[in-house]
Amino acid sequence: MPDLSKPAVTVLGAGDMGSALVRALLAAGYPTTVWNRTPERAKPLVAEGATQATTVAEAVEASRLVIVCLLDYKSVTEVLDTARDALAGQVLVNLTNGTQGQARELAGRYDVDYLDGGIMAVPPMIASPAAFVFYSGSRSAYDTNKPVLEVFGESIYVGTDPGFAALHDIGLLSGMYGMFVGGLHALALVTSAGIPATKFAPLLKRYVSSMTGYVDRMAEQIDKQDYAIDVTSNIAMQSAGYVNLTLSAEEQGISPELLAPLGPLMAQRVADGHGHEDLGGVVELLKKGNKK
Amino acid sequence: MPDLSKPAVTVLGAGDMGSALVRALLAAGYPTTVWNRTPERAKPLVAEGATQATTVAEAVEASRLVIVCLLDYKSVTEVLDTARDALAGQVLVNLTNGTQGQARELAGRYDVDYLDGGIMAVPPMIASPAAFVFYSGSRSAYDTNKPVLEVFGESIYVGTDPGFAALHDIGLLSGMYGMFVGGLHALALVTSAGIPATKFAPLLKRYVSSMTGYVDRMAEQIDKQDYAIDVTSNIAMQSAGYVNLTLSAEEQGISPELLAPLGPLMAQRVADGHGHEDLGGVVELLKKGNKK
Ligand SMILES: NC(=O)c1ccc[n+]([C@@H]2O[C@H](COP(=O)([O-])OP(=O)(O)OC[C@H]3O[C@@H](n4cnc5c(N)ncnc54)[C@H](OP(=O)(O)O)[C@@H]3O)[C@@H](O)[C@H]2O)c1
Ligand SMILES: NC(=O)c1ccc[n+]([C@@H]2O[C@H](COP(=O)([O-])OP(=O)(O)OC[C@H]3O[C@@H](n4cnc5c(N)ncnc54)[C@H](OP(=O)(O)O)[C@@H]3O)[C@@H](O)[C@H]2O)c1
Repeated sequence: MPDLSKPAVTVLGAGDMGSALVRALLAAGYPTTVWNRTPERAKPLVAEGATQATTVAEAVEASRLVIVCLLDYKSVTEVLDTARDALAGQVLVNLTNGTQGQARELAGRYDVDYLDGGIMAVPPMIASPAAFVFYSGSRSAYDTNKPVLEVFGESIYVGTDPGFAALHDIGLLSGMYGMFVGGLHALALVTSAGIPATKFAPLLKRYVSSMTGYVDRMAEQIDKQDYAIDVTSNIAMQSAGYVNLTLSAEEQGISPELLAPLGPLMAQRVADGHGHEDLGGVVELLKKGNKK
Repeated sequence: MPDLSKPAVTVLGAGDMGSALVRALLAAGYPTTVWNRTPERAKPLVAEGATQATTVAEAVEASRLVIVCLLDYKSVTEVLDTARDALAGQVLVNLTNGTQGQARELAGRYDVDYLDGGIMAVPPMIASPAAFVFYSGSRSAYDTNKPVLEVFGESIYVGTDPGFAALHDIGLLSGMYGMFVGGLHALALVTSAGIPATKFAPLLKRYVSSMTGYVDRMAEQIDKQDYAIDVTSNIAMQSAGYVNLTLSAEEQGISPELLAPLGPLMAQRVADGHGHEDLGGVVELLKKGNKK
């Protein structure tokens, strides 16, 4: 049952994530309006208590707080451009994945109090203690709507620059995709030798977890731009081992392409005289103009 | 003090890892002989109780159990080829990083009882509960020397194929380097916007840890070769987000090269009609001949 003492909320988008957001709002008692390009996809949410709007403008007018969670920047602008007038004066919270540049552009595109967000969870995690969401942009929009926003998970406000939530979001996604890239390569490799992926996965999680401390070391070195601090695994040795990593995949008929780019960067650090230093120095080669 | 009731052990190599192995053996009371190409590097170990051999043959003759931990396969064969006669009948445990093919070749190269191993730890972790070592090859060499081998950390015997320890080792290193690739990219990205790496690292570890469950899902899908099980983050959506990941780096003047290869593989899965499925299907494209 919606609690009419609670403010109304509108969600544009009933994909996997939009639907999870709507369900969390309904469970917390917020009167919730939903709109989706393909109306059928929102039907189950209506059965659970949501109100379905027929047009974007109608959805936007139903609540002061409008949350948009669509595929990408292009879909957001296509949808919101059809309801410019209705948007005027509303609070717009954009939980669609995008870059810092896109977020900054959106902040000025409509006559709204704009808050950008990055959801650090998959849909089943929404409203669980493991979920957290970065927000940046309008401080007043964040402060006023914090109780609603915290329905989805812990909220972390990272500044008034509307691009900062996206930077934090994409930073963490980059870390996550690195882990996935390693996992995909590893599982392709071992299954090619008949080792079941489900048997190998627990070892993978154990080992990768035991090595997360290395990320702290890299962070310290990167902040100091000094890659010779406490080296126990010099990059010359790591570079020699990395050649084996590529070769091992090739011996199994597995393409090493996912992990390949790190090899030449390590080799360049060694060639540049940093062989006794640590892996973290590779970041220097990622900065524009630093690579030969 | 060496405990003379304990068998003698020889370690060839006094780099960071070889030195950690020697120290662990000394701490456990094993009479330990060490040899290193650059003799000065072994001097601190002599002060701590090790015996230093002048030649490889002398080192190999000092103990029935000979452990070799050098840079790579090439250095191992260069060193051991000089002591073929001395090696005859000894137990050789190779803890040097290498491929499964190199391990199989080494197993037949000398007249020894051959055990291959992969150390899953950095030197400061040796002899701590977090360290573990894969072994494969001679079962009798493993069983007889288990007490010595377990000085370094937990031992996991993965089969009589001498290449299997290397496959497990490189599988886990692949996972680890994926995590590092993600970490390096992420830290390069956020520091370019003035966010300190040491401030971002705890978020990175928290988020990456919260996503390790996804590796179990991928493993299940890979074993079943069915990538449509329990999808909550379809690859069409992930592929659209991945474009932003690359673009975000470019907006900051950071090269996306480390994470770039996953993008086209995701896009190909979508183009091949698997857009509603999960990320794990990318492994199909890593298998030889499957990619267009
Ligand atoms: N799922 C996750 O794990 C996850 C995690 C964190 C963040 N996110 C982010 O959340 C957002 C939504 O993801 P999702 O998982 O809900 O994806 P999804 O299940 O694929 O849903 C996509 C949504 O976008 C809509 N859409 C796509 N193109 C459109 C267009 N041109 N005009 C209007 N609507 C359009 C779809 O409408 P139709 O139903 O009409 O196609 C649908 O509502 C994405 O930015 C994603 O990066 C997702
Ligand atoms: N450190 C780690 O984090 C770690 C973790 C797991 C596994 N490992 C593996 O352990 C092995 C040793 O690594 P490390 O950290 O000890 O490396 P390191 O500190 O760079 O030491 C390299 C060792 O190899 C010797 N060596 C190199 N080329 C040689 C040659 N042509 N002939 C004879 N000796 C040669 C070096 O002798 P000199 O002193 O004369 O140069 C030194 O003893 C590698 O295979 C590595 O992959 C290391």
